[in-house]
Formats: sequence, C-alpha cells, structure tokens
Amino acid sequence: MRVLGIDPGSEITGWGVVEGDARCYQLVDYGAIRTSPHSAFALRLLRISEGLENVIARLHPNVCAVEEAFFAANVKTALKLGQVRGVAILAAARAGLEIKEYAPRLIKQTIVGYGAAEKHQVQEMVRVLLKLEQAPQPNDAADALAVAICHLHHLRFAASQREVLRHL
Amino acid sequence: MRVLGIDPGSEITGWGVVEGDARCYQLVDYGAIRTSPHSAFALRLLRISEGLENVIARLHPNVCAVEEAFFAANVKTALKLGQVRGVAILAAARAGLEIKEYAPRLIKQTIVGYGAAEKHQVQEMVRVLLKLEQAPQPNDAADALAVAICHLHHLRFAASQREVLRHL
Repeated sequence: MRVLGIDPGSEITGWGVVEGDARCYQLVDYGAIRTSPHSAFALRLLRISEGLENVIARLHPNVCAVEEAFFAANVKTALKLGQVRGVAILAAARAGLEIKEYAPRLIKQTIVGYGAAEKHQVQEMVRVLLKLEQAPQPNDAADALAVAICHLHHLRFAASQREVLRHL
Repeated sequence: MRVLGIDPGSEITGWGVVEGDARCYQLVDYGAIRTSPHSAFALRLLRISEGLENVIARLHPNVCAVEEAFFAANVKTALKLGQVRGVAILAAARAGLEIKEYAPRLIKQTIVGYGAAEKHQVQEMVRVLLKLEQAPQPNDAADALAVAICHLHHLRFAASQREVLRHL
C-alpha cells in the first residue's frame, strides 16, 4: 500500500508518500507546494491543486491521509484553511483515492507515543521511523509524512484487532 | 459579458448565470447542486466540483462572482464552508475565469438598496431585476444570481466613475 499524506496550508502544503504494509514501510518521496501570499487566492488554490495532481500522477498512491481539522485561531483563518483543505481533498478524490482523516492527537499519540507531543518531537520521530539522516524539511512535509505513517500504523492496529477477535 | 454567480454550501451549492453589459442584463440559467449529508465529505466535494465544471462547460461564463466569506457561526462551520468554497473557486480558476468577491453587505446594498436587507428581499429583487414570474428556487440559486447581478452593477458603477473622472 502506498499512502499519500497531505498537510494543507495556504502558504505551504506539505506532502509525503510512504509505502508499506501493516508491518513495515519506507519513504517514497516528500515535498512541499509553496504559493506566494502576493498571488490571487484563486491562483494559489489552482497551484496547490495542480501540484498535488502532479504528485498523484507521478507516485500513484492508493490512499490519502490527512489531518482532521477542527481547530483554527478564528473563523477567518478557518475559512482560509478550509479552502486549501477542500482543494487538497478534491485532488485525491478526483484521482479516485480513498481519503482517511486522523485527529491531531491521534497522530501525535501514534508517532511519538502521547497525544500532547510537541511538533519537533513528531518531526524527529518521522526521521527515526523512516531511517532518514535528517528530519524532512519543510516541517509541513514532515507533518504530511506523520499522517501517512499514522494511517499505516492504524492499519496494523486494525489487523491486530481482527486477529485477536478471531481467537475470542 | 456572461457572469457565473456561485453560492457555495455543503448541502446546496446554488449557481446562476446572467448575461449583459454595464447597462442591461438577462438571465441565462440557474440551478443548484445538491449533495447528501450521508455521503463521504470528499465525494460531496467531488460532486460540487463536477457540477460546477459542467455548468461552466455548458454555459461558457467569462467571469465568476462569489460572496466574500468572513462570517460563520463557529470554527467548525467555517472549516466546512471553506472546503466547499475552495472547491467552487477552484472550478472557476481551472476554467481560466477571473474570480471576483463581493461582501454580503455590498450585495444587499446593490440589489435591494440597503446593506441590512433580509434574505427574502434579495430574492424578490432578483425576481424583479431578471423579470421572472417567480423567485428562483432554491434560495441558494437566487443568492448566486444576486452576486452575479452585483458584479454587473459594479461594472456599471466602475464605468460611470471612469466617465465622471474623465470630465474632472
């Protein structure tokens, strides 16, 4: 299974692709789509959409994982983030990918071991889990890889549950 | 000039196309894209995107007008509305349309004559301005037509301003 993780943002949208199964996985590629705050917002959405479509066309992920969004500093920020998030999810949906959402706390819990982990701890653990020499940059790409890994861990957990339930 | 007005919403996205110039205009068509709250959100975004792309391919608007969003009941609602709005704006941007945003108060001011007008007054004035027998249904389509008309009125105003300034 090849998972595309996305961390949507209006200035930087991080993405990361991880391949593996419920037992082991490895990095395929990661990167970030940057848009200029001086561009019209519609053009920024277009650039994010096209950037993600290129990634999907090049790397052929099977599933897309994205952080659940239910927090933003205020309504204005939420509307802006929502627009980028909608465009990111649409890119995956257009390509026929299944989309899975994970709560921020669950991602931190899965990657670091506790839900209140700091951002830099998540990034360092992504480096360790993917056996990289340096933490992926920018941080948005590391966050995207974190949600992709979270999806694979979650599959492992679901598989273990089925295994246990079969013996009850 | 042919203007596509859009009123994005996760359950109903209204659209309306008005053709005209700075002096007179008429209805081309209007409608609404409905999505089921029981569908996965990504599939709802896909349906809205495809629906608007069909409208654009069929009616060939030159420009897209959409209500500025800076209000929502809370952050959660704002994130949801933002996602639909991002997908709607993207559909127009992909087709190469220029996108214009108008504040809700300006739309009401333009259509009804004062910025605190009620929704039903906007809908009734859309009926009158487009010489229709009945107000367009659903209300989301009437709101989409209102923002399209607002754009044409705004062009008229901008043209008048240029005319006046030329004589100063």
